[in-house]
Amino acid sequence: MNIGLDMMGGDFAPLEAVKGIRLFLAAHTAPITLYLFGDEALLGPLLKEYAIPADSYKIVHAPQVIGMHEHPTKALKEKQQSSIAMGFHTLATGKTDAFISAGNTGAMLVGALYSIKAIEGVLRPTIATIVPKENGQTGLLLDVGLNADCKPEQLNQFAVLGSLYAKYILGIDQPKVGLVNVGEEEGKGNILAQATYPLLKENSAIQFTGNIEGRDVFGDKADVMVCEGFTGNIILKLAESFYDITQRQQVKNTYFDRFNFESYGGTPVLGVSKPVIIGHGISHDKAFMNMLHLAVKMINSDLLEKMKDSFTTV
Amino acid sequence: MNIGLDMMGGDFAPLEAVKGIRLFLAAHTAPITLYLFGDEALLGPLLKEYAIPADSYKIVHAPQVIGMHEHPTKALKEKQQSSIAMGFHTLATGKTDAFISAGNTGAMLVGALYSIKAIEGVLRPTIATIVPKENGQTGLLLDVGLNADCKPEQLNQFAVLGSLYAKYILGIDQPKVGLVNVGEEEGKGNILAQATYPLLKENSAIQFTGNIEGRDVFGDKADVMVCEGFTGNIILKLAESFYDITQRQQVKNTYFDRFNFESYGGTPVLGVSKPVIIGHGISHDKAFMNMLHLAVKMINSDLLEKMKDSFTTV
Repeated sequence: MNIGLDMMGGDFAPLEAVKGIRLFLAAHTAPITLYLFGDEALLGPLLKEYAIPADSYKIVHAPQVIGMHEHPTKALKEKQQSSIAMGFHTLATGKTDAFISAGNTGAMLVGALYSIKAIEGVLRPTIATIVPKENGQTGLLLDVGLNADCKPEQLNQFAVLGSLYAKYILGIDQPKVGLVNVGEEEGKGNILAQATYPLLKENSAIQFTGNIEGRDVFGDKADVMVCEGFTGNIILKLAESFYDITQRQQVKNTYFDRFNFESYGGTPVLGVSKPVIIGHGISHDKAFMNMLHLAVKMINSDLLEKMKDSFTTV
Repeated sequence: MNIGLDMMGGDFAPLEAVKGIRLFLAAHTAPITLYLFGDEALLGPLLKEYAIPADSYKIVHAPQVIGMHEHPTKALKEKQQSSIAMGFHTLATGKTDAFISAGNTGAMLVGALYSIKAIEGVLRPTIATIVPKENGQTGLLLDVGLNADCKPEQLNQFAVLGSLYAKYILGIDQPKVGLVNVGEEEGKGNILAQATYPLLKENSAIQFTGNIEGRDVFGDKADVMVCEGFTGNIILKLAESFYDITQRQQVKNTYFDRFNFESYGGTPVLGVSKPVIIGHGISHDKAFMNMLHLAVKMINSDLLEKMKDSFTTV
């Protein structure tokens, strides 16, 4: 198994990435090779300093870095020697089985959409976020910002992609799918939600349980929550801000602690043909470790093959 | 000043409404007549029992009640002797200057839209909610569910209505208007948000400060936050659920206490020609009291005339 990791991405790169690798290798015992993209002169000594076993990684020298605020498409085109561009190139040619970066989110999305292919039959890839449920379980919300405007058919596909992710990665056997909406009854909502409801209802590949409202996001009604990326992004950022508020208000609570993104690490891009994970810019070692574990899980569970099968039969 | 109050609306009617009147009159000393709509045989003894001064109210006998789950349009048409239908009739004929109910929300909206007129020039009325800001101030979010699909011109009008409400009711002298969106920069967002941004930017009747993201809802960036009713409703219910979670998790915190709707009471319908306030079904005395205070403020500030002026000059 070969996993690609951008060592230059994120506000605390490459140090926190190296520390994350150390944490990851302490728990992961199966054979693995990490392809580490970045400045060789910088990475070599640092990896030695942190005693990362030499047989666990290969440094791929990438002399360029895409900054956090660079224009994604332009940067990817002009900086072909950047860690993100080279990371995707290595993924596309099959040398690696997954690619992870906490760098420029836009460049990661552009790379995921154009360097590797979408799964055949998928109209648009999507990005999802983990939702800590109040009952202790974990839900999935998608799309959270890649597709600000959607068609009903896309939301129906997000439901399938999200259900497979929930089953094989989150371990939810028969994930319940809810449509994010403004009311419980069929027929409620805006034009998009009204048109999406019957598609979800008739989709035999998922367990549709109906509409869920804003108040149900952290509740038991649905495991996989589907919406266009405008609403999803606002829910995601609002929830993050609630966590920040609890921190500022010095609220000590184990449930709210689960809102800390470090505990899950990164956002998978779903609907593309290989595992791609995008990390938060402020990722620390724990987030990098969790993204590496997630990549392993996505590869070991054969999630991508299951998604491909699902779209060839639909 | 004459204020109409539906005594039969809400889960704890009429008792909590009567207790709310008592609280209200203890603080309100100016001359006022409350028009109380409901079952006279029930209300008469109850008002006496709670020692409500007889010169402060008139009971308007309404033998019918619209239940919380009745179909709004059908119920209003068939139950013309209901407290909500009679309340709107009295408002429309000018006997009262405002109408308040914690009853069937749908019936209140239908009544507001059809029994009294929209302000001339207003494309669609809207409903707003108070947002407790972390800095101690109060913001306004609109639309929160009346208009699930909107045109850019409607959002531009919501910005004007919201700014006037923020100025004259919330006491914010130059309210900053933010467009709820998925990114900070102009050009971000879905088709609606992209088309709305330039309208807000060019609108000289408001102080537009640009896009705000989900994480900014409780922050300082904007006082008046504009979006279509789909997103707004989900933000509202998500925020309510966060409050509920903090209560269940037994978080003691004065900031989160401000999320309790009882402290502001009700939701104004903006863009209609007279003050209409819709209360939560589970309103208790404090919520009724606050809705009465809000009605007085809406009348005394001449808010509706200011809104009418604003739309004749635009």
